Amino acid sequence: MTEFLCPCGPGITVPAALMPDFAKAGGLIPVITQDASTLEVLMLAYMNEEAFAKTLETGEVHYWSRSRNELWHKGETSGHVQKLRGMRIDCDNDALLVRVDQTGGAACHTGYRSCFYRALTEDGVIECCPLIFDPDAL
Amino acid sequence: MTEFLCPCGPGITVPAALMPDFAKAGGLIPVITQDASTLEVLMLAYMNEEAFAKTLETGEVHYWSRSRNELWHKGETSGHVQKLRGMRIDCDNDALLVRVDQTGGAACHTGYRSCFYRALTEDGVIECCPLIFDPDAL
Repeated sequence: MTEFLCPCGPGITVPAALMPDFAKAGGLIPVITQDASTLEVLMLAYMNEEAFAKTLETGEVHYWSRSRNELWHKGETSGHVQKLRGMRIDCDNDALLVRVDQTGGAACHTGYRSCFYRALTEDGVIECCPLIFDPDAL
Repeated sequence: MTEFLCPCGPGITVPAALMPDFAKAGGLIPVITQDASTLEVLMLAYMNEEAFAKTLETGEVHYWSRSRNELWHKGETSGHVQKLRGMRIDCDNDALLVRVDQTGGAACHTGYRSCFYRALTEDGVIECCPLIFDPDAL
């Protein structure tokens, strides 16, 4: 699968075709975050217009935290930032897909590589994803 | 990456650990749909409790259409159904990841394989995904 580097930097201009329709979505759009190398889905979070702009300005993914109601620079305190490698938009301009290099190897606050670390199987629910760090030991 | 077949069939019991918290999410949760073979993200849509149950009962992905406000058996009219291969849930139990075999090869109503068919690059927005069918010719 071809991957393209996403241009980043201060003052970057986003073509209209890739601008999310924040107004239609009530200000927040869902963002799927995928590991740029393995294509594993790491998490789903949300961006508002400010988080979207900060992500492209800095090259590190910013979300809008719905629980804290504030801009969320992912990994700012832990150092586990997400370096932006690619950005795609869906047909309705109301969802984004970002591809990242996940510093530290874990996207989830639980210490698992992916927030989607539980799978349904014939034997019940299993942990399908490695634990990278112990959050209690931080 | 290990993949696990998701059990399906009438009367399937979902373990509590994999049950989405529909109430917390206002009845609808976002669902990321990923190609089971290539891991390409095909689309993002929503499920309510009925769509979730129907998906597991039938082994074909059902969503809740927010625009039509009705249960949406993906591919019911076109034949482009999504065969369920895996199901994962996130750490907050408010997002799902399904892995599917996409019948017909295209998940998007535009005819592209993925709804995320546009990527931001140094040269502007490009189409990063093949067109599988011409929707005007249907």
